[in-house]
Amino acid sequence: MLGGGQLGRMLLQVAANWDLEVHVLDPNPEAPARSLSPHFVRGDFSDYDTVYAFGQSLDLLTIEIEKVNTEALLRLAREGKKVYPQPEIIALIQDKRRQKAFYREAGIPTADFLLTETRADVAQHLDFLPAFHKLGQGGYDGRGVQYLASPADLPLAFEAPGLLEKAVAIHKELAVLVARNPSGEVAVFPPVEMVFEPRLNLVDYLLSPAQITPAQAQEAQLLARTLIEKWQMVGLLAVEMFLTAEGQLLVNEVAPRPHNSGHASIEANYCSQFEQHLRAILDWPLGNPASRQAAAMVNLLGEAGHQGPTYYEGLPEALGQPEAFVHLYGKKITQPGRKMGHLTLLAENPAALPSKVAWARQVLKVKSTPLSE
Amino acid sequence: MLGGGQLGRMLLQVAANWDLEVHVLDPNPEAPARSLSPHFVRGDFSDYDTVYAFGQSLDLLTIEIEKVNTEALLRLAREGKKVYPQPEIIALIQDKRRQKAFYREAGIPTADFLLTETRADVAQHLDFLPAFHKLGQGGYDGRGVQYLASPADLPLAFEAPGLLEKAVAIHKELAVLVARNPSGEVAVFPPVEMVFEPRLNLVDYLLSPAQITPAQAQEAQLLARTLIEKWQMVGLLAVEMFLTAEGQLLVNEVAPRPHNSGHASIEANYCSQFEQHLRAILDWPLGNPASRQAAAMVNLLGEAGHQGPTYYEGLPEALGQPEAFVHLYGKKITQPGRKMGHLTLLAENPAALPSKVAWARQVLKVKSTPLSE
Repeated sequence: MLGGGQLGRMLLQVAANWDLEVHVLDPNPEAPARSLSPHFVRGDFSDYDTVYAFGQSLDLLTIEIEKVNTEALLRLAREGKKVYPQPEIIALIQDKRRQKAFYREAGIPTADFLLTETRADVAQHLDFLPAFHKLGQGGYDGRGVQYLASPADLPLAFEAPGLLEKAVAIHKELAVLVARNPSGEVAVFPPVEMVFEPRLNLVDYLLSPAQITPAQAQEAQLLARTLIEKWQMVGLLAVEMFLTAEGQLLVNEVAPRPHNSGHASIEANYCSQFEQHLRAILDWPLGNPASRQAAAMVNLLGEAGHQGPTYYEGLPEALGQPEAFVHLYGKKITQPGRKMGHLTLLAENPAALPSKVAWARQVLKVKSTPLSE
Repeated sequence: MLGGGQLGRMLLQVAANWDLEVHVLDPNPEAPARSLSPHFVRGDFSDYDTVYAFGQSLDLLTIEIEKVNTEALLRLAREGKKVYPQPEIIALIQDKRRQKAFYREAGIPTADFLLTETRADVAQHLDFLPAFHKLGQGGYDGRGVQYLASPADLPLAFEAPGLLEKAVAIHKELAVLVARNPSGEVAVFPPVEMVFEPRLNLVDYLLSPAQITPAQAQEAQLLARTLIEKWQMVGLLAVEMFLTAEGQLLVNEVAPRPHNSGHASIEANYCSQFEQHLRAILDWPLGNPASRQAAAMVNLLGEAGHQGPTYYEGLPEALGQPEAFVHLYGKKITQPGRKMGHLTLLAENPAALPSKVAWARQVLKVKSTPLSE
């Protein structure tokens, strides 16, 4: 496994059920996955020689982060190693320009866009605003994306190859997880929904399953299935979508691995996204992705104003809420906004979830020594 | 944690969710829990000095096996360490004679019995047969128990302190898990049932929840609650019971830790027995022990005739059954009858479970190089 972050850590928790020997490559000696694997190798997964050497003695390679050296993975695949997801697909997804161009060519609905090489290019297309300017490579976790509301925002555009994507009126943001194994079996999870805090326009929590019509759910699932089948990809694919104000579904971005939007599946679905990824890459029968119960998932971010050794405030109190499941990632140092864990709340009635979320947010905080002013 | 077997391994899988640093003491360098803890200490948990030294640097001690040195734990507790379950209770439970005597004194219903010191003692009580002769100390996993059907079986009795327990006509064997934290909060799981294979009289599988009347379930739960409250025990207590042919509930034996009879709780209950044990000893609010769905749990035992490096036959096929959850314990060497893992099957309708169990048994086997004849 290339990468030993929280996604890797949760994959290892499942891998232990099946006695799989998972070797982990990560540059961080305190990576979250380290404490669950006796086969931890410290090294840079974006370095050709490191990845190639790491893969030599292994049977099967997978990733928990996209920013890996796909050239080394391609060579390992050519030399007979199993590499899932396939390096060609990781490389395509790493490049947002190629990703978007693929959607257009393949007839996958996506927001209108045009490619730009420089900021001057953007200036040629001011009629395209309001739009998002996105870096072609290296964007991650909200970085590398800039909203350009009007020509006055032009100075914010990147001076690097990117794409200008027309802003659309979004009704909901959805995500669909889909898995495919080498035998061609495909299993699609029910769509989940990002619930926004209206005043701050920030993702507040994730709702599983999404509150959309059955027809919309079916269409979203078909879109995810179409995508993984066109790519013949093996592994788990997270497909982020917009449901527009006009009721149209548009593919936004994808990740070829377990994804933040799938965390609720650990408790809320029969088969979790982590179990499903392992089943897929091992060419085992896929698990049942159906929802068992409605759930909300809240990311636990490092508290503003706190940086240093991690302290979890209110952990026992949070676990006192019925059907509250806390997952901490074991990061020794907290930083404002850093993903430190997540919390999943189950409810028989989805209407009960918003107040549970509000309560959990108030109770559970990741802190450290406060930063001095 | 004293002990690093499969129970310890499954505790560590939960502990990872809460970023707990768990140190493990076990004499076996290939103990199942080892690969999930970077804090593994090789040593004998039944040795006074080893346990005392192990506990020196830790905040809280617990067990995943009863055969530990309780004298060392008592000293650690006296010196201010938290030790849960309390060493006095572990010591009482280690001794089946004291355990049974406690039930009698405390008015807990249990099968009639008398204490014996030697085989000659047993010979004095042939009118008590048919009965089970049980060793006072050291019995484990079916060892240390001998059925004496008639006086002709007298040579099978143990030449050591034990107890002679009257055989009762059993309708069902049940188990109730109950947890208590230091604040006195108690949570009781729904009873589960051992389903026997009628021809061989072997436990075939475990059914969760037990198919008994609500009144019987309530009475069994009350019995478990009474027991843990009388002891003021902290942690998880597994209470094995008989439901007699006359409809009476009798306590058979207990274990002050997670237990084989609770494995289905990982998928079939809101809070698993492993999570509940950790919540209890940490003095956190207890989780919801309610059943989410009916389940069957089957132990995966080493196949007869196979001894050596472990090989799992039919693993992908077993996972192809909907809602099948396989847990392998990572034991590198299999032996006939050794507990190598377990499998939990969920079903909306409990009537579907027996055929799922039969199928799983046929498909999934733990093998190695066959033993030569």
